[in-house]
Amino acid sequence: MKAGEIAVRVPTITVADPVARAVRLMAVGRLPGLVVVDDRGRPKIVLPGTQVLRLAVPGAYQDDPALARVVDEDHADRFWDELGNLTVGDCLPRQPLRPVTVPASATLLEVAALMARAHSPLVAVVDTDGVLTGAITLERLLVSLALSGLGD
Amino acid sequence: MKAGEIAVRVPTITVADPVARAVRLMAVGRLPGLVVVDDRGRPKIVLPGTQVLRLAVPGAYQDDPALARVVDEDHADRFWDELGNLTVGDCLPRQPLRPVTVPASATLLEVAALMARAHSPLVAVVDTDGVLTGAITLERLLVSLALSGLGD
Repeated sequence: MKAGEIAVRVPTITVADPVARAVRLMAVGRLPGLVVVDDRGRPKIVLPGTQVLRLAVPGAYQDDPALARVVDEDHADRFWDELGNLTVGDCLPRQPLRPVTVPASATLLEVAALMARAHSPLVAVVDTDGVLTGAITLERLLVSLALSGLGD
Repeated sequence: MKAGEIAVRVPTITVADPVARAVRLMAVGRLPGLVVVDDRGRPKIVLPGTQVLRLAVPGAYQDDPALARVVDEDHADRFWDELGNLTVGDCLPRQPLRPVTVPASATLLEVAALMARAHSPLVAVVDTDGVLTGAITLERLLVSLALSGLGD
Protein backbone atom coordinates (compact mmCIF):
# COMPACT_ATOMS: atom_id res chain seq x y z
CA MET A 1 0.00 0.00 0.00
CA LYS A 2 0.98 3.59 -0.61
CA ALA A 3 0.45 6.70 1.50
CA GLY A 4 -1.99 8.09 -1.07
CA GLU A 5 -4.23 5.03 -0.70
CA ILE A 6 -4.69 5.29 3.06
CA ALA A 7 -4.72 9.09 3.43
CA VAL A 8 -7.96 10.71 4.52
CA ARG A 9 -9.29 14.26 4.35
CA VAL A 10 -8.74 16.18 7.56
CA PRO A 11 -9.85 19.65 8.61
CA THR A 12 -7.01 22.18 8.40
CA ILE A 13 -6.20 25.46 10.09
CA THR A 14 -4.20 28.54 9.15
CA VAL A 15 -2.03 30.81 11.29
CA ALA A 16 -4.92 33.31 11.31
CA ASP A 17 -7.30 30.92 13.11
CA PRO A 18 -7.92 31.44 16.84
CA VAL A 19 -6.19 28.88 19.05
CA ALA A 20 -9.55 28.08 20.66
CA ARG A 21 -10.91 27.03 17.26
CA ALA A 22 -7.89 24.82 16.59
CA VAL A 23 -8.26 22.99 19.89
CA ARG A 24 -12.01 22.52 19.33
CA LEU A 25 -11.49 21.24 15.78
CA MET A 26 -8.98 18.67 16.99
CA ALA A 27 -11.15 17.51 19.89
CA VAL A 28 -14.37 17.26 17.87
CA GLY A 29 -12.59 15.43 15.05
CA ARG A 30 -10.82 13.14 17.55
CA LEU A 31 -7.62 13.91 15.69
CA PRO A 32 -4.11 13.32 17.02
CA GLY A 33 -2.90 16.65 15.62
CA LEU A 34 -3.59 19.33 13.02
CA VAL A 35 -2.14 20.45 9.71
CA VAL A 36 -1.54 24.20 9.45
CA VAL A 37 -1.71 25.23 5.78
CA ASP A 38 -0.70 28.43 3.98
CA ASP A 39 -3.03 30.35 1.66
CA ARG A 40 -2.25 27.99 -1.20
CA GLY A 41 -3.15 24.89 0.80
CA ARG A 42 0.45 23.79 1.37
CA PRO A 43 1.31 22.41 4.81
CA LYS A 44 3.29 25.01 6.75
CA ILE A 45 3.61 22.90 9.87
CA VAL A 46 2.09 19.66 11.16
CA LEU A 47 1.32 20.00 14.86
CA PRO A 48 1.10 16.88 17.05
CA GLY A 49 -1.84 17.07 19.46
CA THR A 50 0.36 17.92 22.43
CA GLN A 51 1.69 20.92 20.53
CA VAL A 52 -1.82 22.09 19.62
CA LEU A 53 -2.50 21.88 23.36
CA ARG A 54 0.72 23.80 23.97
CA LEU A 55 -0.68 26.73 21.95
CA ALA A 56 -3.44 26.95 24.56
CA VAL A 57 -1.23 26.79 27.67
CA PRO A 58 -0.22 30.33 28.70
CA GLY A 59 3.52 30.81 28.18
CA ALA A 60 4.39 31.29 31.84
CA TYR A 61 3.10 27.82 32.75
CA GLN A 62 4.62 25.96 29.82
CA ASP A 63 8.07 25.47 31.21
CA ASP A 64 7.58 26.00 34.94
CA PRO A 65 5.84 23.13 36.75
CA ALA A 66 6.16 25.01 40.07
CA LEU A 67 4.15 27.95 38.74
CA ALA A 68 1.37 25.72 37.36
CA ARG A 69 1.20 23.99 40.74
CA VAL A 70 0.25 27.14 42.70
CA VAL A 71 -2.73 28.06 40.49
CA ASP A 72 -5.93 27.18 42.33
CA GLU A 73 -8.24 24.53 40.94
CA ASP A 74 -11.00 26.84 39.67
CA HIS A 75 -8.56 28.91 37.65
CA ALA A 76 -6.68 25.83 36.51
CA ASP A 77 -9.89 24.39 35.04
CA ARG A 78 -10.27 27.49 32.91
CA PHE A 79 -6.76 28.39 31.89
CA TRP A 80 -7.80 28.65 28.28
CA ASP A 81 -10.19 31.50 29.04
CA GLU A 82 -7.00 33.54 29.12
CA LEU A 83 -6.50 32.81 25.42
CA GLY A 84 -8.86 35.52 24.26
CA ASN A 85 -8.40 36.09 20.54
CA LEU A 86 -4.87 34.75 20.30
CA THR A 87 -4.28 33.15 16.92
CA VAL A 88 -2.33 30.04 16.02
CA GLY A 89 0.33 32.28 14.44
CA ASP A 90 0.70 34.24 17.71
CA CYS A 91 1.48 31.07 19.63
CA LEU A 92 3.60 28.98 17.24
CA PRO A 93 7.19 28.31 18.23
CA ARG A 94 9.57 30.96 16.94
CA GLN A 95 11.89 28.67 14.98
CA PRO A 96 10.33 27.45 11.73
CA LEU A 97 9.86 23.68 11.65
CA ARG A 98 9.85 21.58 8.48
CA PRO A 99 6.35 20.18 8.02
CA VAL A 100 6.03 16.42 8.38
CA THR A 101 5.00 15.43 4.83
CA VAL A 102 5.27 12.52 2.41
CA PRO A 103 4.39 12.14 -1.29
CA ALA A 104 1.41 9.92 -2.16
CA SER A 105 3.90 7.31 -3.40
CA ALA A 106 5.55 6.78 0.01
CA THR A 107 5.29 3.26 1.45
CA LEU A 108 3.78 2.50 4.86
CA LEU A 109 7.30 1.81 6.17
CA GLU A 110 8.38 5.30 5.14
CA VAL A 111 5.31 6.79 6.85
CA ALA A 112 5.98 4.76 10.02
CA ALA A 113 9.67 5.70 10.12
CA LEU A 114 8.79 9.38 9.66
CA MET A 115 6.13 9.34 12.40
CA ALA A 116 8.58 7.70 14.79
CA ARG A 117 11.46 10.02 13.92
CA ALA A 118 9.41 13.23 13.98
CA HIS A 119 7.35 12.19 17.03
CA SER A 120 4.28 13.09 14.98
CA PRO A 121 1.12 10.93 15.09
CA LEU A 122 -0.08 12.83 12.00
CA VAL A 123 1.64 12.96 8.61
CA ALA A 124 0.51 15.20 5.75
CA VAL A 125 0.39 13.82 2.20
CA VAL A 126 1.26 16.35 -0.52
CA ASP A 127 1.20 16.43 -4.33
CA THR A 128 4.16 17.46 -6.49
CA ASP A 129 3.35 21.14 -5.91
CA GLY A 130 3.49 20.61 -2.16
CA VAL A 131 -0.28 21.05 -1.83
CA LEU A 132 -2.05 18.99 0.86
CA THR A 133 -4.08 16.09 -0.54
CA GLY A 134 -4.80 14.23 2.72
CA ALA A 135 -3.29 13.04 5.97
CA ILE A 136 -2.49 9.80 7.77
CA THR A 137 -3.03 9.34 11.49
CA LEU A 138 -1.07 6.84 13.58
CA GLU A 139 -4.30 4.93 14.19
CA ARG A 140 -5.04 4.71 10.47
CA LEU A 141 -1.49 3.54 9.76
CA LEU A 142 -1.73 0.76 12.36
CA VAL A 143 -5.10 -0.43 11.05
CA SER A 144 -3.76 -0.40 7.46
CA LEU A 145 -0.69 -2.41 8.46
CA ALA A 146 -2.87 -4.92 10.30
CA LEU A 147 -5.25 -5.33 7.36
CA SER A 148 -2.32 -5.66 4.99
CA GLY A 149 -1.10 -8.70 6.96
CA LEU A 150 -4.61 -10.17 7.00
CA GLY A 151 -4.83 -10.04 3.22
CA ASP A 152 -2.45 -12.97 2.79
CA MET B 1 -11.10 19.21 38.72
CA LYS B 2 -8.17 17.09 39.72
CA ALA B 3 -6.17 14.53 37.75
CA GLY B 4 -7.51 11.72 39.94
CA GLU B 5 -11.10 12.58 38.99
CA ILE B 6 -10.60 12.34 35.23
CA ALA B 7 -8.09 9.48 35.11
CA VAL B 8 -9.23 6.21 33.57
CA ARG B 9 -7.94 2.65 33.74
CA VAL B 10 -5.71 1.77 30.81
CA PRO B 11 -4.07 -1.51 29.81
CA THR B 12 -0.38 -1.58 30.69
CA ILE B 13 2.66 -3.43 29.39
CA THR B 14 5.99 -4.51 30.87
CA VAL B 15 9.43 -4.67 29.29
CA ALA B 16 8.94 -8.45 28.92
CA ASP B 17 5.94 -8.08 26.59
CA PRO B 18 6.48 -8.63 22.86
CA VAL B 19 6.48 -5.42 20.83
CA ALA B 20 3.77 -6.90 18.60
CA ARG B 21 1.47 -7.23 21.63
CA ALA B 22 2.15 -3.63 22.66
CA VAL B 23 1.26 -2.26 19.24
CA ARG B 24 -1.90 -4.39 19.11
CA LEU B 25 -2.98 -3.30 22.61
CA MET B 26 -2.58 0.35 21.68
CA ALA B 27 -4.44 0.00 18.37
CA VAL B 28 -7.34 -2.03 19.78
CA GLY B 29 -7.72 0.33 22.76
CA ARG B 30 -7.46 3.37 20.43
CA LEU B 31 -4.93 4.74 22.88
CA PRO B 32 -2.49 7.60 22.15
CA GLY B 33 0.33 5.76 23.96
CA LEU B 34 1.11 3.10 26.56
CA VAL B 35 2.33 2.98 30.15
CA VAL B 36 5.18 0.52 30.76
CA VAL B 37 5.05 -0.61 34.40
CA ASP B 38 7.57 -2.49 36.57
CA ASP B 39 6.70 -5.62 38.56
CA ARG B 40 5.23 -3.50 41.35
CA GLY B 41 2.89 -1.62 39.01
CA ARG B 42 4.95 1.57 39.03
CA PRO B 43 5.28 3.43 35.70
CA LYS B 44 8.76 2.88 34.32
CA ILE B 45 8.19 4.89 31.18
CA VAL B 46 5.18 6.43 29.43
CA LEU B 47 5.50 5.92 25.67
CA PRO B 48 3.69 8.28 23.28
CA GLY B 49 2.07 6.39 20.42
CA THR B 50 4.76 7.38 17.94
CA GLN B 51 7.37 5.85 20.22
CA VAL B 52 5.38 2.61 20.59
CA LEU B 53 5.39 2.57 16.77
CA ARG B 54 9.13 3.25 16.86
CA LEU B 55 9.65 0.00 18.80
CA ALA B 56 8.22 -1.80 15.77
CA VAL B 57 10.29 -0.04 13.09
CA PRO B 58 13.53 -1.97 12.49
CA GLY B 59 16.50 0.06 13.69
CA ALA B 60 18.10 0.51 10.28
CA TYR B 61 15.05 2.35 8.93
CA GLN B 62 14.45 4.55 11.94
CA ASP B 63 16.93 7.26 11.15
CA ASP B 64 17.59 6.78 7.45
CA PRO B 65 14.74 7.94 5.18
CA ALA B 66 16.79 6.94 2.10
CA LEU B 67 16.98 3.33 3.24
CA ALA B 68 13.23 3.11 3.94
CA ARG B 69 12.60 4.52 0.46
CA VAL B 70 14.28 1.66 -1.40
CA VAL B 71 12.29 -1.12 0.31
CA ASP B 72 9.67 -2.39 -2.13
CA GLU B 73 5.99 -2.00 -1.36
CA ASP B 74 5.24 -5.62 -0.44
CA HIS B 75 8.02 -5.74 2.11
CA ALA B 76 7.22 -2.25 3.37
CA ASP B 77 3.65 -3.36 4.15
CA ARG B 78 5.00 -6.09 6.39
CA PHE B 79 8.00 -4.57 8.09
CA TRP B 80 6.74 -5.67 11.45
CA ASP B 81 6.95 -9.33 10.49
CA GLU B 82 10.68 -8.81 11.10
CA LEU B 83 9.90 -8.17 14.77
CA GLY B 84 9.74 -11.83 15.67
CA ASN B 85 9.79 -12.19 19.44
CA LEU B 86 11.49 -8.92 20.22
CA THR B 87 10.31 -7.53 23.53
CA VAL B 88 9.56 -3.97 24.55
CA GLY B 89 12.69 -4.05 26.71
CA ASP B 90 14.82 -5.07 23.72
CA CYS B 91 13.68 -2.03 21.75
CA LEU B 92 13.45 0.77 24.34
CA PRO B 93 15.84 3.70 23.94
CA ARG B 94 19.11 3.18 25.79
CA GLN B 95 18.97 6.27 27.98
CA PRO B 96 16.44 5.93 30.83
CA LEU B 97 13.63 8.48 30.59
CA ARG B 98 11.68 9.86 33.53
CA PRO B 99 8.12 8.60 33.30
CA VAL B 100 5.50 11.27 32.64
CA THR B 101 3.46 11.10 35.87
CA VAL B 102 1.33 13.31 38.10
CA PRO B 103 -0.22 12.79 41.54
CA ALA B 104 -4.01 12.47 41.74
CA SER B 105 -4.11 15.98 43.22
CA ALA B 106 -2.62 17.68 40.14
CA THR B 107 -4.84 20.27 38.44
CA LEU B 108 -5.84 20.10 34.78
CA LEU B 109 -3.49 22.98 34.06
CA GLU B 110 -0.59 20.97 35.50
CA VAL B 111 -1.58 17.98 33.37
CA ALA B 112 -1.85 20.16 30.25
CA ALA B 113 1.50 21.85 30.85
CA LEU B 114 3.17 18.47 31.40
CA MET B 115 1.67 16.94 28.23
CA ALA B 116 2.82 19.94 26.20
CA ARG B 117 6.31 20.01 27.73
CA ALA B 118 6.90 16.24 27.53
CA HIS B 119 5.24 15.90 24.08
CA SER B 120 3.21 13.09 25.62
CA PRO B 121 -0.51 12.66 24.82
CA LEU B 122 -0.71 10.24 27.76
CA VAL B 123 0.04 11.03 31.41
CA ALA B 124 0.16 8.41 34.16
CA VAL B 125 -1.47 9.15 37.53
CA VAL B 126 0.33 7.63 40.52
CA ASP B 127 -0.32 7.27 44.25
CA THR B 128 2.15 8.28 46.97
CA ASP B 129 4.05 5.00 46.50
CA GLY B 130 4.49 5.73 42.81
CA VAL B 131 2.03 2.97 41.84
CA LEU B 132 -0.13 3.56 38.75
CA THR B 133 -3.76 4.35 39.59
CA GLY B 134 -4.92 5.50 36.13
CA ALA B 135 -4.01 7.59 33.13
CA ILE B 136 -5.21 10.67 31.28
CA THR B 137 -5.25 10.92 27.50
CA LEU B 138 -5.06 14.22 25.63
CA GLU B 139 -8.59 13.60 24.33
CA ARG B 140 -9.92 13.05 27.85
CA LEU B 141 -8.20 16.20 29.10
CA LEU B 142 -9.72 18.31 26.31
CA VAL B 143 -13.21 16.93 26.95
CA SER B 144 -12.83 17.53 30.70
CA LEU B 145 -11.72 21.11 30.13
CA ALA B 146 -14.63 21.74 27.76
CA LEU B 147 -17.16 20.26 30.22
CA SER B 148 -15.64 22.27 33.04
CA GLY B 149 -16.39 25.48 31.12
CA LEU B 150 -19.93 24.32 30.38
CA GLY B 151 -20.65 23.77 34.04
CA ASP B 152 -20.87 27.49 34.78
